[in-house]
Amino acid sequence: MSEQVNSVDFGPMTQVMDFLMELDKLKRVERRTRLIGNSRHENSAEHSWHLAVAAMSLAPFFEGGTDVQRVVQMALLHDVVEIDAGDVMVYDLAAREAISHQEVAAADRLFGLLPAALQQRFRALWDEYEAGESVDARFANMLDRALPIIQNLHNQGQSWKENGIRLEQVLARNVALAEQWPALWNHLQGHLIEAQRKGWLQ
Amino acid sequence: MSEQVNSVDFGPMTQVMDFLMELDKLKRVERRTRLIGNSRHENSAEHSWHLAVAAMSLAPFFEGGTDVQRVVQMALLHDVVEIDAGDVMVYDLAAREAISHQEVAAADRLFGLLPAALQQRFRALWDEYEAGESVDARFANMLDRALPIIQNLHNQGQSWKENGIRLEQVLARNVALAEQWPALWNHLQGHLIEAQRKGWLQ
Repeated sequence: MSEQVNSVDFGPMTQVMDFLMELDKLKRVERRTRLIGNSRHENSAEHSWHLAVAAMSLAPFFEGGTDVQRVVQMALLHDVVEIDAGDVMVYDLAAREAISHQEVAAADRLFGLLPAALQQRFRALWDEYEAGESVDARFANMLDRALPIIQNLHNQGQSWKENGIRLEQVLARNVALAEQWPALWNHLQGHLIEAQRKGWLQ
Repeated sequence: MSEQVNSVDFGPMTQVMDFLMELDKLKRVERRTRLIGNSRHENSAEHSWHLAVAAMSLAPFFEGGTDVQRVVQMALLHDVVEIDAGDVMVYDLAAREAISHQEVAAADRLFGLLPAALQQRFRALWDEYEAGESVDARFANMLDRALPIIQNLHNQGQSWKENGIRLEQVLARNVALAEQWPALWNHLQGHLIEAQRKGWLQ
């Protein structure tokens, strides 16, 4: 990773500014997904924005009763650890396992830039998202799975085709979505089967 | 602008999905600011993420008493109209005036993709941000001004140098910040004067 951004004095806000400027690097982390109708790869910062807007927009359609505010804040923070650990595709289970300790170290470093009260609050949100147990974390996790699927459905299966993804992988990785948000899953499943028929998924 | 993204059936969620996929285009809107230590221009989607995280992080330091949740949601939506209207630099007052009716038309089109309840809620947030009168909107507006200044201070005045910006322009455009958030402004002002001394600002 590149060197930490230089600190500029903002009095009691200096640590927050250091954190915010360090987060600028999330704009450099590339994902496998490309923009719809465009050749450029999406980065993790703009993905985090998209996910947060998806949370605001889809919460009224999720019957689990989430606190939208908390889900939005989780979405905004969920990928910051990729600044140090990089992005690994959801279907690459071995690589995901391998980097999990790097992600924890990244969370220590990045949230550690903040003053204590903010550090605890943001770290708790990130830990909750990672644990994926609370209703808010489960909703955020499901959206994080669903959003690239929906992008692919609008972009001729781009990242599935480029990475040789099979329908059964997508189905296997989304069991929680099928169980916990059937109203969304029933639509996704039909479109995924159709996507395989079109050759977008193997 | 490119054609609207094709609709995929998601039952009662179809309109929201159309909206979210149309918003993907915000990732293509370039701003004048470049990433810190990197040659690429920032886009308005990743800027919106950065602004929302800045709101979460700096709200405890603003004594005006904002509702962070509302400011975060404003930050996430504040630039979506640039999908149709493009980004205009804060110092280009004539161009900003000229595109204001395009921005309203863009808000009509984009929020009009949503079902009525969400449309009203998101449009009200965007209108409130644009009016800049409520305490939440003023805080969001001040952050939107301050963030690129802070990025420039960490990036050797990149967008100021590239666009020939003068210190007096920055001071003139941030009178509200000076009046309403002196604890931040006092630091910014000192750094801006120093930036001119270094030749980052004219």
